[in-house]
Amino acid sequence: MIVVMEPRANDQLVNSVVDKLKSMGFDIHLSKGIEKTIIGAVGERRAEAAQAVEAMPGVEKVVPILHPFKLAGLQFKSERTVVRVGQVEFGGTKIVNIAGPCAVESRDQLLAAAKAVKEAGADMLRGGAFKPRTSPYTFQGLEEEGLKILAEAREVTGLPFVTEVVNPRDIELVASYADVLQVGTRNMQNYTLLKELGRVMKPVILKRGLSATIEEWLMAAEYVVSAGNWNVVLCERGIRTFETFTRNTLDVSAIPAVRSLSHLPVIVDPSHATGKSKLVPAVSLAAVAAGADGLMVEVHPNPSEALSDGPQSLNPEEYREMLAKVKPLAVAMGRWA
Amino acid sequence: MIVVMEPRANDQLVNSVVDKLKSMGFDIHLSKGIEKTIIGAVGERRAEAAQAVEAMPGVEKVVPILHPFKLAGLQFKSERTVVRVGQVEFGGTKIVNIAGPCAVESRDQLLAAAKAVKEAGADMLRGGAFKPRTSPYTFQGLEEEGLKILAEAREVTGLPFVTEVVNPRDIELVASYADVLQVGTRNMQNYTLLKELGRVMKPVILKRGLSATIEEWLMAAEYVVSAGNWNVVLCERGIRTFETFTRNTLDVSAIPAVRSLSHLPVIVDPSHATGKSKLVPAVSLAAVAAGADGLMVEVHPNPSEALSDGPQSLNPEEYREMLAKVKPLAVAMGRWA
Amino acid sequence: MIVVMEPRANDQLVNSVVDKLKSMGFDIHLSKGIEKTIIGAVGERRAEAAQAVEAMPGVEKVVPILHPFKLAGLQFKSERTVVRVGQVEFGGTKIVNIAGPCAVESRDQLLAAAKAVKEAGADMLRGGAFKPRTSPYTFQGLEEEGLKILAEAREVTGLPFVTEVVNPRDIELVASYADVLQVGTRNMQNYTLLKELGRVMKPVILKRGLSATIEEWLMAAEYVVSAGNWNVVLCERGIRTFETFTRNTLDVSAIPAVRSLSHLPVIVDPSHATGKSKLVPAVSLAAVAAGADGLMVEVHPNPSEALSDGPQSLNPEEYREMLAKVKPLAVAMGRWA
Amino acid sequence: MIVVMEPRANDQLVNSVVDKLKSMGFDIHLSKGIEKTIIGAVGERRAEAAQAVEAMPGVEKVVPILHPFKLAGLQFKSERTVVRVGQVEFGGTKIVNIAGPCAVESRDQLLAAAKAVKEAGADMLRGGAFKPRTSPYTFQGLEEEGLKILAEAREVTGLPFVTEVVNPRDIELVASYADVLQVGTRNMQNYTLLKELGRVMKPVILKRGLSATIEEWLMAAEYVVSAGNWNVVLCERGIRTFETFTRNTLDVSAIPAVRSLSHLPVIVDPSHATGKSKLVPAVSLAAVAAGADGLMVEVHPNPSEALSDGPQSLNPEEYREMLAKVKPLAVAMGRWA
Repeated sequence: MIVVMEPRANDQLVNSVVDKLKSMGFDIHLSKGIEKTIIGAVGERRAEAAQAVEAMPGVEKVVPILHPFKLAGLQFKSERTVVRVGQVEFGGTKIVNIAGPCAVESRDQLLAAAKAVKEAGADMLRGGAFKPRTSPYTFQGLEEEGLKILAEAREVTGLPFVTEVVNPRDIELVASYADVLQVGTRNMQNYTLLKELGRVMKPVILKRGLSATIEEWLMAAEYVVSAGNWNVVLCERGIRTFETFTRNTLDVSAIPAVRSLSHLPVIVDPSHATGKSKLVPAVSLAAVAAGADGLMVEVHPNPSEALSDGPQSLNPEEYREMLAKVKPLAVAMGRWA
Repeated sequence: MIVVMEPRANDQLVNSVVDKLKSMGFDIHLSKGIEKTIIGAVGERRAEAAQAVEAMPGVEKVVPILHPFKLAGLQFKSERTVVRVGQVEFGGTKIVNIAGPCAVESRDQLLAAAKAVKEAGADMLRGGAFKPRTSPYTFQGLEEEGLKILAEAREVTGLPFVTEVVNPRDIELVASYADVLQVGTRNMQNYTLLKELGRVMKPVILKRGLSATIEEWLMAAEYVVSAGNWNVVLCERGIRTFETFTRNTLDVSAIPAVRSLSHLPVIVDPSHATGKSKLVPAVSLAAVAAGADGLMVEVHPNPSEALSDGPQSLNPEEYREMLAKVKPLAVAMGRWA
Repeated sequence: MIVVMEPRANDQLVNSVVDKLKSMGFDIHLSKGIEKTIIGAVGERRAEAAQAVEAMPGVEKVVPILHPFKLAGLQFKSERTVVRVGQVEFGGTKIVNIAGPCAVESRDQLLAAAKAVKEAGADMLRGGAFKPRTSPYTFQGLEEEGLKILAEAREVTGLPFVTEVVNPRDIELVASYADVLQVGTRNMQNYTLLKELGRVMKPVILKRGLSATIEEWLMAAEYVVSAGNWNVVLCERGIRTFETFTRNTLDVSAIPAVRSLSHLPVIVDPSHATGKSKLVPAVSLAAVAAGADGLMVEVHPNPSEALSDGPQSLNPEEYREMLAKVKPLAVAMGRWA
Repeated sequence: MIVVMEPRANDQLVNSVVDKLKSMGFDIHLSKGIEKTIIGAVGERRAEAAQAVEAMPGVEKVVPILHPFKLAGLQFKSERTVVRVGQVEFGGTKIVNIAGPCAVESRDQLLAAAKAVKEAGADMLRGGAFKPRTSPYTFQGLEEEGLKILAEAREVTGLPFVTEVVNPRDIELVASYADVLQVGTRNMQNYTLLKELGRVMKPVILKRGLSATIEEWLMAAEYVVSAGNWNVVLCERGIRTFETFTRNTLDVSAIPAVRSLSHLPVIVDPSHATGKSKLVPAVSLAAVAAGADGLMVEVHPNPSEALSDGPQSLNPEEYREMLAKVKPLAVAMGRWA
């Protein structure tokens, strides 16, 4: 940790900071420049110390040197984590293909979708039963009824399924049906939810917040992991920027970036990233080429009848064509799909 | 609602869209240009219809004409809402001054803060008992113990208090102590929380999400209002942009913008907006000049001892000086503080 | 073009707008809803009309229906443009590999770089002679001396070269040496420069502005094309967002987006997009997978001696290894590199 | 300057960096933590050294400690700069009111505007003769003819005028007519233009780039100042963010921020910041309350006839009403308008 003092900070102010840091067990290296004094501090209680010192008189800024995440970081665990869901492995050599509709709308719709994505080559089914919607006046999901339909689809197709949980009170219920629990982009910093998911022994797909930095995203994972659940899969799904042609901006560099910082697997949701079904295949290929461990794609048996996210959903035929392109690309990358 | 068809959409595709919209009760106005056909649709079930049509073949985009919020909008209720908390009125002529520390850290700290802000001229106390923190390793709040201390401070100073609620399960508990419930920036789209707050008869301060558009923010208010609780105060607290000199970027234009769209009162949190205590006074003045109905400022008896947000907290003396500048400005605006 | 009137706009205001549009030759379709009146207008002078009408009393907003670009758009020319530079083709089946240092620093440095990238498999050399630098106190480029060195490197290696032009006054000079002229990100909306480049018969690589939308980028291309020079290659190089881990955020979706809007070829600069050499290979693969027609990569014989952009430069060995990964990927995409 | 080494950097790599810095005249302070080694370096050639070291093997990042600007900074010159244009003073106690149309469209239009803003209380006239426009198909300005009309308006009203220069080749011409030269947002990093404006002895209004950080903006000022022209007035005009309700997002905190970093005066353009005339008055008041030294407002005799920026232009009556609100506010701030 580096503490930069203001140009006008006198010796007394510098000494107060030094004393404070020493009292918290830090080793101090002092460096007096002509314009500014800089205090290097080495010790354990960094987050606390930064907070304490940042507001002291004469302090210009505190520059952290180490990343704030610990357990989620490569420095803690250099071997890559593989998250297993039955025979599916996130972080293995196979690209994991997750597909299904945004929302479970009816038994017929979901079973049709499940069969279609199974046939097209998907490894896992997705579908929302509890839907966080921007408007209180649109379809909010079938709730437990939706979970039952998802379980039936698993029965029929053999595909495990992932579904979103939005309320800490529903975790037990959702976990009793689902194979994987998803934390949506709007809940990435819902720490109550994250902590409780850390105590459930089900894998978690943690979507990146709409405006979360990579570091904040890994800190959200840290909440789950530090509570005891190491089965976290990160999911990049686009960030909010000034560009409006696409619904969000896929941060493709985040894939190698996360891989250089963390041992956790990382997948990509090209549907929310672009918001336009015709851009989904190209962006999916880009994600795999950048090193993603999987793709979570919205597929609807009939996108124009979808109760949500129709414009970004592929139909089963389009999904099949997309996977036909992903497969040779994965092979060129030394993986398979 | 306007549906823009792709240049290559033939009559059959256009007719399918028209039929769909008619079946949902819409009146249709068709306009064929040389390059594109445009369908104007007038009717009630807009959100649904937009969704249904957006994914139909041949549709390029759907352009909404009306704002998605209803009850929160000026068109529904043109008279400005005044939210009353005892003698305090949000949306009256007086600028409401809310002040206090980021977190309740101890009985001594909070009572000192409460007395100091009361003396400086504050109308309401703020302080967090449940803290959403980026890191699981930093102070997470005193929880119910914190609420008790806040209630004691109210007893002592006569100031009502506002505190954040982060978990739907805690609403009842927090509401049994607090005068006003705050929804933090990270929970602005925690719809479970919003819906349940709509059923509590306590005023809610709804902070704008870090990357929420003004429209999304008003839709979040719509969740609370449509569930029955009209006592919503909006709070602009800075949005996330590329600028890193300040912690966030205060969107000062959002104040007159919200006032042109909604009847709900709007206040400003200059502390989170800037992240730097020395910028807080100037930004507070700007907020009042732009038409804000109140200011929520972090004040700590000793910012350099604060367990969170020290660098953006004023000490009581600085707060007093700030209010001394706000008062004449409010008068120049035809209000008072 | 759709004109949305304010809810309170009376017939007189609506008629004024209608009359104005008719006087500009537009056909009018009027649609009166309960809350708002909407005017559809079909005609030629759209940009002018939008401007004229937008500020008329009673007008809430004008929604354009057609894209503002014309010659650069797929609707004007559906056949993809191939930009030829000697034997190099942008927009053909081969991925064009451009490489070289950020700046020409000396004859030795550039010749070493040129030979190294030629040997590694590059098709074209890059190197800056006129450098736009954030600070007036850092190296500003060798200017004409740099151009001479680049020409010598072409002589030696046979590689054509691209270099940036920053000043309209230098166009003639730079064009007398270079094979391709580059417009940098900071000059994407330097319309004086663009117009004059439209009159030079040399291919232009047009980098996307740091905060330019896709539409603005294509409008910048329109400036060059409409002045007579159709040899424009678009270059995505990352946009500015809140994320600071990378220097910029590569907008990988912009590649298929541009290809769905324009016939012009599009390449990617992964070096500026990421700012970190270790992320460059993964991002380059992603760009090719997304459909990019080429890659422009910073390669320096000795990145730690570079006078600019060292941290994002590959050394020749790293570039060779990267191309070894790009080649099979290109083949999997049905192209070659 | 702080150099943070990667966790795996061995002594040899650390020593190379230390030697390099010593060879550039730096004093070194070494601090070895358990995970990372940190090198503090004190010396003069910082920009160069940062560049040299950043790309060396084993270096994770370089953290600058001092701001990159020198002459524009408060540390170089603590006394506030007052830029004088005849009797007008930027940075004095009076708020400078600049007003006029976006573009000079005709002699009649400009003279009407000039008389109207003079009568309403403006101190200076604005109007564009060379217009940077997003589309090559819209009005590009009257060029020298426009300058002549502006000069005539000065003759008639006594108001000095500011106008934009977009091309280095036009500087001499524009300077021969105008009292103040404006650098527009798209040219903030047009360094050729900035350097040449540094050699002209006319005041310069330097608009902040659409996506420029405060630091980059001050570095742009540094280009002008370091070339010899100290008469620079900074102009905040909104930055590009995800919010689309307003044309840009006024960064009101930038006003006190700039004042805490630089001695240069700072004004605000509320018209481009909001893009909506009805938001201009509230935002103007906010700017003055935040400490702005002036306001540059688009006023058109007939906004709905404007050839550009009509929707954000006030008519003379609205401008008069706005100034009537600004005046008492300025007085409350201890200034006058």
